[in-house]
Amino acid sequence: MARADKNLAFMLQYENVAWYEGGKVRILDRRIYPVKVEFVTCNRHEEVAQAIADMVTQSAGPYAAAGMGMAQAAFEAKEFGSEQFQAHMKTAAHTLSHARPTTVARMQTITAGCLDVALNAREAGIPADLAIREHVVHNLDTRYRKIGQAAEYLVDLFPKKGTIMTQCFGETIVGQMLRVARERGYDLKIICPETRPYFQGARLTASVAKDMGYDVTVITDNMPAYTMQTKNVDVFTSAADVICMDGWVVNKVGTLQIAIAAKYFGIPYFVSGGPDRQHSIIDTVTIEERDPELCLEAMGVRTAMQGVGGYYPSFDATPPHLVSSVVTDRGIFSPYDVARYFKGSDSGSLVV
Amino acid sequence: MARADKNLAFMLQYENVAWYEGGKVRILDRRIYPVKVEFVTCNRHEEVAQAIADMVTQSAGPYAAAGMGMAQAAFEAKEFGSEQFQAHMKTAAHTLSHARPTTVARMQTITAGCLDVALNAREAGIPADLAIREHVVHNLDTRYRKIGQAAEYLVDLFPKKGTIMTQCFGETIVGQMLRVARERGYDLKIICPETRPYFQGARLTASVAKDMGYDVTVITDNMPAYTMQTKNVDVFTSAADVICMDGWVVNKVGTLQIAIAAKYFGIPYFVSGGPDRQHSIIDTVTIEERDPELCLEAMGVRTAMQGVGGYYPSFDATPPHLVSSVVTDRGIFSPYDVARYFKGSDSGSLVV
Repeated sequence: MARADKNLAFMLQYENVAWYEGGKVRILDRRIYPVKVEFVTCNRHEEVAQAIADMVTQSAGPYAAAGMGMAQAAFEAKEFGSEQFQAHMKTAAHTLSHARPTTVARMQTITAGCLDVALNAREAGIPADLAIREHVVHNLDTRYRKIGQAAEYLVDLFPKKGTIMTQCFGETIVGQMLRVARERGYDLKIICPETRPYFQGARLTASVAKDMGYDVTVITDNMPAYTMQTKNVDVFTSAADVICMDGWVVNKVGTLQIAIAAKYFGIPYFVSGGPDRQHSIIDTVTIEERDPELCLEAMGVRTAMQGVGGYYPSFDATPPHLVSSVVTDRGIFSPYDVARYFKGSDSGSLVV
Repeated sequence: MARADKNLAFMLQYENVAWYEGGKVRILDRRIYPVKVEFVTCNRHEEVAQAIADMVTQSAGPYAAAGMGMAQAAFEAKEFGSEQFQAHMKTAAHTLSHARPTTVARMQTITAGCLDVALNAREAGIPADLAIREHVVHNLDTRYRKIGQAAEYLVDLFPKKGTIMTQCFGETIVGQMLRVARERGYDLKIICPETRPYFQGARLTASVAKDMGYDVTVITDNMPAYTMQTKNVDVFTSAADVICMDGWVVNKVGTLQIAIAAKYFGIPYFVSGGPDRQHSIIDTVTIEERDPELCLEAMGVRTAMQGVGGYYPSFDATPPHLVSSVVTDRGIFSPYDVARYFKGSDSGSLVV
């Protein structure tokens, strides 16, 4: 592996995203990466759920972690009888799926898949924990491959020479997009808003882009509009936590106001991911609110005086009229036409 | 003075904003206030210019500091002959005016006024340094009184019960606006974006509002649009570093994208201050760019990996079609009609 891709590859190795082994799940702590490389070790599936809730892993990391948490749960229940086993696994699926409110539906699909695998494994006399891990790895492989396809479509929409603004850490799609653009010889500059309160843009996205040899510039979250006005931004792009069937996009807070600014300046906004049939309309999505105290500090240092309040919505929702294209592994769709994604292929969306 | 106004009053005391005494200028260090209360002492007028450049004092603080710097320069040159004195004072006026590029014209007016006072004082046999200080204090008094008048007009535009979003630290106008609203018995909630990279919103605006007994909420700079969507924001308001005669508003970076979001959500944006005849059009304003490294750290802690670039425009420019009203000491104006401010009164704008 080339030195240049070290950072992305490190963050995407199954062993680092989240890894079940011998009754423990180990997760790369992305809250402090890349300043420190440390892992959180979970001895129970409840601890995996807590790690997801605490944002030890972010972006698509929680999906892998939830799967590994199901392997952990299977280990916990390996001596149980059939009925008890199933009850334990269902409890674990519920706990892991509800670690964060905005992605419950997608997590339920993932954990239900793991439960099926576990039941089949036990019937076949195979250790259920290892069967689940294999299933999770297989799904990650499929996911990475599909996102590679989406990245090809996304880069088709880019200028050969230009400036791309991102938002938050799009994980696989950001890395794949940068890889594809490099392979095609595109000359791109990358601008990353820092993404408060966790600084994912400054810490994760910028690190990946820098490590892959790109000219990357971090701005604070109050600068996207002015930067669009002064730095010839050609494209705004992000991943999504949920793409609803009505074309609304749920993503890291800040996406909405950058999308509004992009519309104002005539810059297209391309979102990558798979539409989610479990969310027919935006009203079915719960926007998570996290500890408001996190808005009153930065990198662990207090900013506001005691008694001042905070408000911390993790995500926001961008309406379809601000979205220029939804870019998927099956091609490029209008946000008003995402249902077409499922025509002719009834399963295996990017989401599940 | 009531306990509730302690914070605002402290920041607005002449002795704390910037104070010349016995050959030294002392300035409250707002970069660390309110966590620490410390002063920077300047022994030369060049050190005052450096303190302004280093953002020891912000918002309207630099105007007072530049005046006190002129008193300092007069002290430095007190033994000089007439010609040498004038040359020294002109050099000082240039140095102090050019400490930051966006407000040069306004600073030139202020320092030129101080120079006139100094020359008259020497002719009359009065110590020029003390005459300048008296002149600066008189101007601050006039300014505070005028801003009090502007605050009355501003609060006229507020709902009696509602939510006000601010941007950055509007210094006097924020304090006066909160005082007037309280005197009228208005029931207002205040939302302050934190204002990166210096966190003036979290540190200064929120402190003043909290100290004056308001319900105040700090959000990070990626949250204004979503907060407008979810928290029934009634008004967006800010001060301005420059209000051009063509209705463009130069203010802390972030103002533009909040104004765009406000327009999108149908929320009015009221800017307070005085139009500046030295800036007939926006093209005459230089938007200051500061050390990009400041975007790669927060509260002194590094966020991005080495080799990642930064971009730090201090201000941005909001076009008149995003500005609902320009609120001044002489009433409320359309941004397209700010020239009327000078009709009938040819001097003494809020700006000078």
